[in-house]
Amino acid sequence: MSLPTTITAMHVKDIRYPTSIQLDGSDAMHKSPDYSCCYVILETDGPLTGHGHTFTVGKGTDVVCYAADIMKKYVVGRKLDAIFNNFGQYWHEVTCDDQFRWIGPEKGVTHMATAAVMNAIWDLWAKIEGKPLWKLLVDMDAEQLVNCIDFSYIEDVLTKEEAIGILKGMDATKATREAEMRETGYPIYTTSCGWLGYSDEKITKLATEAMSQGFSRFKMKVGQDVKDDIRRAAIFRKVIGPDRIWCVDANQVWGIQQAIDWMTALAPYKPLWIEEPTSPDDILGHAAIAKALNPLGIGVATGEMCHNRVMFKQFLQAGALQFCQIDACRLGGVNEVIAVILMATKFNVPVCPHAGGVGLCELVQHYAMFDYIRCCGTLENRMTEFADHLHEHMCDPVVVRNGHYMPQKEPGFLVGMKAQSLSDYEYPVGAAWQKLFDEGVFKRDHAHENN
Amino acid sequence: MSLPTTITAMHVKDIRYPTSIQLDGSDAMHKSPDYSCCYVILETDGPLTGHGHTFTVGKGTDVVCYAADIMKKYVVGRKLDAIFNNFGQYWHEVTCDDQFRWIGPEKGVTHMATAAVMNAIWDLWAKIEGKPLWKLLVDMDAEQLVNCIDFSYIEDVLTKEEAIGILKGMDATKATREAEMRETGYPIYTTSCGWLGYSDEKITKLATEAMSQGFSRFKMKVGQDVKDDIRRAAIFRKVIGPDRIWCVDANQVWGIQQAIDWMTALAPYKPLWIEEPTSPDDILGHAAIAKALNPLGIGVATGEMCHNRVMFKQFLQAGALQFCQIDACRLGGVNEVIAVILMATKFNVPVCPHAGGVGLCELVQHYAMFDYIRCCGTLENRMTEFADHLHEHMCDPVVVRNGHYMPQKEPGFLVGMKAQSLSDYEYPVGAAWQKLFDEGVFKRDHAHENN
Repeated sequence: MSLPTTITAMHVKDIRYPTSIQLDGSDAMHKSPDYSCCYVILETDGPLTGHGHTFTVGKGTDVVCYAADIMKKYVVGRKLDAIFNNFGQYWHEVTCDDQFRWIGPEKGVTHMATAAVMNAIWDLWAKIEGKPLWKLLVDMDAEQLVNCIDFSYIEDVLTKEEAIGILKGMDATKATREAEMRETGYPIYTTSCGWLGYSDEKITKLATEAMSQGFSRFKMKVGQDVKDDIRRAAIFRKVIGPDRIWCVDANQVWGIQQAIDWMTALAPYKPLWIEEPTSPDDILGHAAIAKALNPLGIGVATGEMCHNRVMFKQFLQAGALQFCQIDACRLGGVNEVIAVILMATKFNVPVCPHAGGVGLCELVQHYAMFDYIRCCGTLENRMTEFADHLHEHMCDPVVVRNGHYMPQKEPGFLVGMKAQSLSDYEYPVGAAWQKLFDEGVFKRDHAHENN
Repeated sequence: MSLPTTITAMHVKDIRYPTSIQLDGSDAMHKSPDYSCCYVILETDGPLTGHGHTFTVGKGTDVVCYAADIMKKYVVGRKLDAIFNNFGQYWHEVTCDDQFRWIGPEKGVTHMATAAVMNAIWDLWAKIEGKPLWKLLVDMDAEQLVNCIDFSYIEDVLTKEEAIGILKGMDATKATREAEMRETGYPIYTTSCGWLGYSDEKITKLATEAMSQGFSRFKMKVGQDVKDDIRRAAIFRKVIGPDRIWCVDANQVWGIQQAIDWMTALAPYKPLWIEEPTSPDDILGHAAIAKALNPLGIGVATGEMCHNRVMFKQFLQAGALQFCQIDACRLGGVNEVIAVILMATKFNVPVCPHAGGVGLCELVQHYAMFDYIRCCGTLENRMTEFADHLHEHMCDPVVVRNGHYMPQKEPGFLVGMKAQSLSDYEYPVGAAWQKLFDEGVFKRDHAHENN
């Protein structure tokens, strides 16, 4: 196979799945999400293509696609060697265009578009090397890997030299941990039993089934009504017993004191963490909640909406999170995620990646493996999220065995969504959407038709 | 005149001015900006229209326009009474759409679009009341004004009751301050003499001219080369003398230690503040810089890229800014800006609004008046930015007298840009742009042409 040297084209697609019909993924903030993504395909002068995406929940996916499309000018025509040899610098160039930067910077729509593009480039790199991303990251020379990071604004807590030191310090023992991962996989918890829209009966049924499949770690959505939450907590604890791990997730609906009060009411059910108790921007608020809940044995988890490495840096500095939930698409792709994993390693805070959505499980497994094998070297208090939906659309869906992710074998990162899914669920033109419109299940959003 | 009851249509325009030709507005981060905006016009069932905008610097303006356009569905067809009577709730509804929120939340592209839309609604409200915005805010019943604020995520530092208390506490004396503003205006500083792209001769000439016009407060851009900055600082100080106020602005180009070192080198020239020393997201970094520079008599100023009230709350809590530089378009419009002004009042931190760009001076004058007359009641350490460009495009340009903004008399907030400017500078179809393309001065951005 001739290896590609140049990116020759970039395509951006708005892909949406009508998950709101079943209330899969419903929580206190996102009552009715349609799991979606901005999907990027890179073509090259060889047969290989790179696939990346950023997860969204329906409306607004087109805005991210619009922004990603503009980024073609940083991508198409570029030599791959020039990118891979100075990846940190290239990342900085893309995120710091002196005009485009203004509408971020490094946050929201533009940064999510960055994620999709960068993840597609990494997917391509891994495919060129013939390795799954986690293995590419595990094998790569420490200097070259660290060279992929933009250290702007984080050097006060992590220098290039420290980052290299962390990676090199683990190299002597990494083969053992890699073998362990290939044998038993990385521990996961499931969110699929406890969506807010699910009935008590459905929770009981799903949690019982999950235990029979080997799951011992669970998460439940909370935050709409405290009495409801207490009832659902009691049901959940009764089903899973006193020793299995159980976490709760409020998806940002509380103020500071409200979070403390609500979690005090749920404390008897022994949650390991409260996830996203308040605004994802409120570092000092999270720190206050963490301090108040510490005596109750409850940690604070957050990160799925933490928008860049500068914010994660401060969450770590302030002791505002006890579980660092990196997301694979909200940060600006692999380059920025590995920076955050290295900072968390330095602060000795466990990384427990956010997943679910569509394609997130497929992505974060790589980070969990990389983190264990080459950064923190421990599984203590570590687990990665799993949600059981939409995997049927993935070319290489995540493999779960006995409550663990088994390491991906296929070369690449996202690898890709199935061509049929990309065609059927492209919004609004795909056949699946046309059918839903025709049946009147969904109304097409006409916002942009008269422009 | 029949007063409007309903918003009947909303138009969004991409307006750009080719300022990069002259390097007006050049700084260490934005080396070549084309001052631009996403411009929103609201039509009603009466003759009045509402005009709002959000400032941008060229590329990417179309992304903000695209997002603003989607927001039509929250605006068109709405009854004005229903908005004005529950404005805080309406603001929350718009910023917390359970799908659209994901691609923010409350930050970047979507929040800038929110600003343009909300500011247009306020412009309309002020026009309906027949008052300039500052006067509308000064006269409005305290309860109704506070009712315009979404207190989500800030109640730990400012409750509704405290906000009402601040406003009511100033009501007995507000007439005196209003009379003073009408007489002498609000103190401003000028940024127009010290852009990074300007030669030493141009700086000297412009600062000398500004002094002759009554200016006694100045700002200079720094951050590209420390030796250059020392030379330019010496020139500036020599021209304006030892007693006039002089500030510097690094536009985010430094890390923490670099900021401290650089400003230690500039300390002999007695800057009042260092503005945007590092990442706008780095609250704890700003706090560290503030602590280190305090013994040198230099304060930290930031805010023009502070993306929402939750971030400002923390900057205030952490002592990370000594000068609070609200922006009129990065926060989500008047509703959120007044929340920040009230928090700053509580923390006794002076509000010194960011302006310049296009139309920002016209907007922030209202906040400065409102802040003085109805919130803080003092001018100590307060001044508002002024930059002398693009005012010729405004229907009611800001009036400067003897280094002060004189209060706007025309009803409205932005009031509006001239119809001819909106037509000539609409990107890329306006006549001014077509001419620049034809002359080869600018190349049209073809990013979206092949979609």
